[in-house]
Amino acid sequence: MGLFLKKIMDNAQAIQAWIQCLGNQYVLTEPNYLHECQTATFTTASQFLAILRPINTAEIQACLKIADQYQIPIYPISKGKNTGYGSKVAPSDNCALLDLGRLDQITDYNGKLGYVTVEAGVTQTQLYQFLREQDAPFWMDAVGASPEASLIGNVLERGFGHTPYGEHFAHVCGFEVVLATGECIHTGFGQFTNAQATPIYRWGVGPYLDGLFSQSNLGIVTKMTIWLMPKPEYFQAFYFSIEHDEQLADLIDALRPLRLNGTLKSAIHIGNDYKVLASIRPYPWTEMINKTPLTDEVLEQFAKTWGFGAWNGSGGLYGTRKQVAEARRLVKQALKGKVKRLQFIDDFTLQTLQKLEKPYQWLTKTKVSELLKLLKPVYGLMQGIPTATQLKSAYWRKKTLPLDPVNPEKDQCGLIWCAPIAPLDGASAVQINEIVNDVFFQYQFEPLISISLLTERCLNCVIAITYDREIPGEDERAMACYESLMEQLTQAGYYPYRLGIQSMKLLAQSEDSYQKLLTKLKHCLDPHGILAPRRYCPPLADSLNTDQ
Amino acid sequence: MGLFLKKIMDNAQAIQAWIQCLGNQYVLTEPNYLHECQTATFTTASQFLAILRPINTAEIQACLKIADQYQIPIYPISKGKNTGYGSKVAPSDNCALLDLGRLDQITDYNGKLGYVTVEAGVTQTQLYQFLREQDAPFWMDAVGASPEASLIGNVLERGFGHTPYGEHFAHVCGFEVVLATGECIHTGFGQFTNAQATPIYRWGVGPYLDGLFSQSNLGIVTKMTIWLMPKPEYFQAFYFSIEHDEQLADLIDALRPLRLNGTLKSAIHIGNDYKVLASIRPYPWTEMINKTPLTDEVLEQFAKTWGFGAWNGSGGLYGTRKQVAEARRLVKQALKGKVKRLQFIDDFTLQTLQKLEKPYQWLTKTKVSELLKLLKPVYGLMQGIPTATQLKSAYWRKKTLPLDPVNPEKDQCGLIWCAPIAPLDGASAVQINEIVNDVFFQYQFEPLISISLLTERCLNCVIAITYDREIPGEDERAMACYESLMEQLTQAGYYPYRLGIQSMKLLAQSEDSYQKLLTKLKHCLDPHGILAPRRYCPPLADSLNTDQ
Repeated sequence: MGLFLKKIMDNAQAIQAWIQCLGNQYVLTEPNYLHECQTATFTTASQFLAILRPINTAEIQACLKIADQYQIPIYPISKGKNTGYGSKVAPSDNCALLDLGRLDQITDYNGKLGYVTVEAGVTQTQLYQFLREQDAPFWMDAVGASPEASLIGNVLERGFGHTPYGEHFAHVCGFEVVLATGECIHTGFGQFTNAQATPIYRWGVGPYLDGLFSQSNLGIVTKMTIWLMPKPEYFQAFYFSIEHDEQLADLIDALRPLRLNGTLKSAIHIGNDYKVLASIRPYPWTEMINKTPLTDEVLEQFAKTWGFGAWNGSGGLYGTRKQVAEARRLVKQALKGKVKRLQFIDDFTLQTLQKLEKPYQWLTKTKVSELLKLLKPVYGLMQGIPTATQLKSAYWRKKTLPLDPVNPEKDQCGLIWCAPIAPLDGASAVQINEIVNDVFFQYQFEPLISISLLTERCLNCVIAITYDREIPGEDERAMACYESLMEQLTQAGYYPYRLGIQSMKLLAQSEDSYQKLLTKLKHCLDPHGILAPRRYCPPLADSLNTDQ
Repeated sequence: MGLFLKKIMDNAQAIQAWIQCLGNQYVLTEPNYLHECQTATFTTASQFLAILRPINTAEIQACLKIADQYQIPIYPISKGKNTGYGSKVAPSDNCALLDLGRLDQITDYNGKLGYVTVEAGVTQTQLYQFLREQDAPFWMDAVGASPEASLIGNVLERGFGHTPYGEHFAHVCGFEVVLATGECIHTGFGQFTNAQATPIYRWGVGPYLDGLFSQSNLGIVTKMTIWLMPKPEYFQAFYFSIEHDEQLADLIDALRPLRLNGTLKSAIHIGNDYKVLASIRPYPWTEMINKTPLTDEVLEQFAKTWGFGAWNGSGGLYGTRKQVAEARRLVKQALKGKVKRLQFIDDFTLQTLQKLEKPYQWLTKTKVSELLKLLKPVYGLMQGIPTATQLKSAYWRKKTLPLDPVNPEKDQCGLIWCAPIAPLDGASAVQINEIVNDVFFQYQFEPLISISLLTERCLNCVIAITYDREIPGEDERAMACYESLMEQLTQAGYYPYRLGIQSMKLLAQSEDSYQKLLTKLKHCLDPHGILAPRRYCPPLADSLNTDQ
């Protein structure tokens, strides 16, 4: 029997075994389902053999054993809302997609110590609704991704949100992990079945292993505990902008001491003019007479109408009324003379603004309702309220408006994220901004950039290449733009905090000893190379499967 | 040639090779040196073949290669100030001690972003002096261990201090690690030689590996970056006490919301009466007519004289004057009616107290100077100032006072720490306190307990068995007390955050799959079992060496 024929028969037998294990309706092989899962927001090549939809850990373990038996790699996703980084698509071909969406239970909630334990399929919206139903005195942290995105999926990609609990990986513990061998482990104090501190203390005793299962292909995290932020007595948001790029370094350096000393407890996000325009409306095809890229003149026209600047920031203040008042004083002091305008908004202001919408609009001719539409989702995110609005900027270059629910993959939106980390100083922000602008100018895309004061000491520049996949040649141009961007950023020492499925090769640039170590770890935990080949894996480890 | 003879010859050859590599004066085999390193503050059995003192990474790599060649296990220490947990002693016999004390360089300091990069031998005192010399606007975090303790050593044991940066493992990144194979890796973004964010962003890209090298025997961490806390505009300490054990649960539950919402940014430490007495003075042999254990009557007499209660707490408030004022208001509100006294002290109060020492003492008959002696080191620790005073309580049951420098191992102090983690709630604290008191009563030791509100959600009860090793039988009784304590605490679900060298067997109680995973990781990273056998290792992995 030829190898090719054997492979086909193995695949067929594996699918039969999976069907026997999960039931017919939870093993999907129909082309339309496969096609949907194989569609990202940029060019991808890999295809799936089948979609497996287990409902619990035992079924996952069984699926893995079958995969191992027939040597078919498994690509696990939680909800697959990895939009802009590859969506549900695997970085290697011919995997079975392991969709954990049916593991959707919130298995624990502690209203005293503020945590929930969730399964991999629990979404942002689901937790948000749950906490509302409980009338919980806690807020979750949300990200601008789809409200249907998995909490665990985001944690494992080490995502960041907008509240003081925004650094997701620093606010979780007690993982349940299914290893490639089918064995199930519990991290931290969870290794002891009767331990009381499992959901409230991350490190446990002995080596701290949680990090091993983030941005990796070393295990399938099926459950974890997520800590919740106590709802503050008072919340106030602030908004500011600067007119010119030249003021950017000063602005960031002025905010640094407040981020470093904890007066600003959450990430401050500063978007450039393109970014703001793209979150207000789609590309102005009429004004641009159908031409791309957007000219400075048209951009300036919109900036004038809407009153946004070259860079526009927002942040949240959390605490008692007095704590917030003091933080407000410090923010005012720091930004004095450095920004065009600095506005503080709370629930009361927002409600008043909504009530006065019409008379105000009549008086000032400013589009208050539109402004509110822009303001409110950001305001909500700072309180951990998921929103679908941020996803809409993926439609920037599309000629059709997004429908509900927003589905950028299906609608052939082009979107590639690149999010390098830099030291929290103005000079780094300026250098990255220059690199991005040069590259985007060359490739004729609008540089949608937002700079976040992510932690006490670092910046994260979130850069989006946004285009229309329906226009022939754009997929190639966008990817060329991305490749050039990555090359120039990493040459300047700015590396991304996470990787799209197309860029795992970056890990080949790391020191040899480090690659060797990762390869060894992969070999140790997944000797047959069954789990998500190439995902956050140096090239050496890729060859595991063929070693067999 | 017999196996025994071969072993002796191998050892001799290995020592020759190490001498060739490090120089004669940095390979110590004299019995007095070995004896010192083999002495902990409780009974231990293991002996060292030699002490190796390399000066840099290259020498460490060379030492490991020789160890591998002759199959001699290596036990690395930074400064070996693991007092109460085994000091410099290894959990397994016949290792060569790898003393990293000569790697004592502070290789980087960033006065803008607040970090230092240090080698393994850099001590608390050294960093403290360095920051003073730099007139740095930053504070380090210090622990109550010896001022000569290594910073990295404490980080790797996941130690905790007294400032907002007290959770050490959460404030470090960019490790340099020498693996058992002799290879050297750099974690986080350090895997890329030109990355700018290595010292300021912990996770890097791809799996986060730092945790793997904490509380483990999987690599030798030779260097890391430690983040520093911006010196606040204003600092105030607060002190409080309660009269009776019955008030403990209420006290802790009253503080929880403030710790959870970040009003209290650092650990609150609450010591029982025994703990306070032991930090003021040695055991009252005279009053007790040379009998042990301490009676309630004598304890109460001291409590009355000194004015301490059943439990006595301290905490720090950090920020601008207004931020501290608001925190003070919230602390007062929370503790109202729950504590006997609540005092706030700042630099000004402390100076005034020192000036008025004599007149005040005359007026009130309180021993102000003694009170200050007790107050000041804790006050200093909350500002990250290392102190040797805490170590002195190891002399509690000794009949001779400690000399400078304090050396509990040499002075045959008996000290065994046990530090279980519990959820931050009053009921847990009470349950642990009851267990400890019962066990200590049975073994006739004074239960020195301090309860820390360690993080937003957890308590750490730090329990000390303190005795005199010079009294025959005490070593055995103390260890029996410890074993009983561990058994009862873990049966109740309270597991320690770190382990002494005598208690690595606890890891045999974890789930099988977890032990198997740890064993695999050990096998993968250290196939010949060269590095610190048994250290944070389940029993299965112990057998590695004999498998060869």
